[in-house]
Amino acid sequence: MSRGTIYGVGLGPGDPELMSVRANRLVRNARHVAFFRKAGRKGQARGIVEGMLHPDASEIAMEYPVTTEIPFTDPRYNAILSEFYAGCVARLAALAKGGHDVVVLCEGDPFFYGSFMHLHSRLSHLPVEVIPAITGMSGAWTATDSPVTWGDDVLTVLMGTLPEDELARRMAGSDAIVVMKLGRNLDRVRRALERAGRLGAAWLVEYATMPKERVIRLAEAGDAVAPYFSIVVVHGQGRRP
Amino acid sequence: MSRGTIYGVGLGPGDPELMSVRANRLVRNARHVAFFRKAGRKGQARGIVEGMLHPDASEIAMEYPVTTEIPFTDPRYNAILSEFYAGCVARLAALAKGGHDVVVLCEGDPFFYGSFMHLHSRLSHLPVEVIPAITGMSGAWTATDSPVTWGDDVLTVLMGTLPEDELARRMAGSDAIVVMKLGRNLDRVRRALERAGRLGAAWLVEYATMPKERVIRLAEAGDAVAPYFSIVVVHGQGRRP
Repeated sequence: MSRGTIYGVGLGPGDPELMSVRANRLVRNARHVAFFRKAGRKGQARGIVEGMLHPDASEIAMEYPVTTEIPFTDPRYNAILSEFYAGCVARLAALAKGGHDVVVLCEGDPFFYGSFMHLHSRLSHLPVEVIPAITGMSGAWTATDSPVTWGDDVLTVLMGTLPEDELARRMAGSDAIVVMKLGRNLDRVRRALERAGRLGAAWLVEYATMPKERVIRLAEAGDAVAPYFSIVVVHGQGRRP
Repeated sequence: MSRGTIYGVGLGPGDPELMSVRANRLVRNARHVAFFRKAGRKGQARGIVEGMLHPDASEIAMEYPVTTEIPFTDPRYNAILSEFYAGCVARLAALAKGGHDVVVLCEGDPFFYGSFMHLHSRLSHLPVEVIPAITGMSGAWTATDSPVTWGDDVLTVLMGTLPEDELARRMAGSDAIVVMKLGRNLDRVRRALERAGRLGAAWLVEYATMPKERVIRLAEAGDAVAPYFSIVVVHGQGRRP
């Protein structure tokens, strides 16, 4: 029996209309659909394809072990996640070896800070195909209704998990800036932007391309934790005729 | 009569299957389709939608004035391009004011170093909508079959038009690197990567997602001018369980 393929399918920033033609077809025809989610949640990626799955599709929810109590610098964090990913791979590999294709749903673009990468690196023994997608940051800067980069602007993409000093230094040295993984890091990101002299030009985009989309000046955002789907954008001001 | 809308439609990296569901529908139904091209060429964006246009679609080719003889630092360069964009806007605005929707074809993502931005900034008096898309760089790193960023990797996006010293400094300070606008700058980009100690990890991706796609180590690429659709990728090596 020939082996099935495991597809890492990028779904884009959230609006199902922004899925690629290819991703749309793969998702609608899939009989085995896998996705990550936090325990007790529906799953962000699963939410994007609501109403699109084939009636005969079987769903494989890969639930993250609870790790918020352990800092990611603790070796146990890596060990727990590593075991979790190995278990996911075993489930998907068993299907593929049985001749079944599997679609793994991925928010954004799978190879850009995506969870699927942790499966991909463990699946080299099987046919795997990755479908790129519109990144969350493209959705975010489009929502601001203003181009993010002009001419020879430098764009720096930063994670809100970085230390404040490093954030501030890199923000000061870049033309355009994107910051992801905000959540509880929003305050640190705001302080770093202020130190870099860029806070006045920073936008907070929540739920880009989704019905709850909201674009506000970061300086005017409250102190709440940023929702999962939120991104900070500072536009470049480069050369333009 | 109500005014039409001017759609800046991102087409993605080149494979028509990677256009979004929304872009695909807009392109197939459009009666007025505009695109930039070099004089005497078919046009990169127009090539992506070959065979997709409605039989009644009228095509509006916006041909760049020849400016290669003038360096872009010369004020005449800006004046010539500015006049050109103003002329394009006049053509599109006349259609929109007559009640016609216009689809402007854009390679990659319109707000990410895109030509459409120069129309968008001159079209604030009319209904304009921008459809984000898969960037050329997403197509390129997917073609390398390896994730571009992990954990809290920093990604820096650089244009090959920057001075060699600045390229080398920024390349040395970033985890993951993308370089666009290669063309005649390929040699300078290669020297900068070498000075930054990153040449051994650099990939040159030509025509990502297209039939002519080619992925080679940059160190092994010849001295030829890089084709229009080519991007350099250096992958980050960040935290991964």
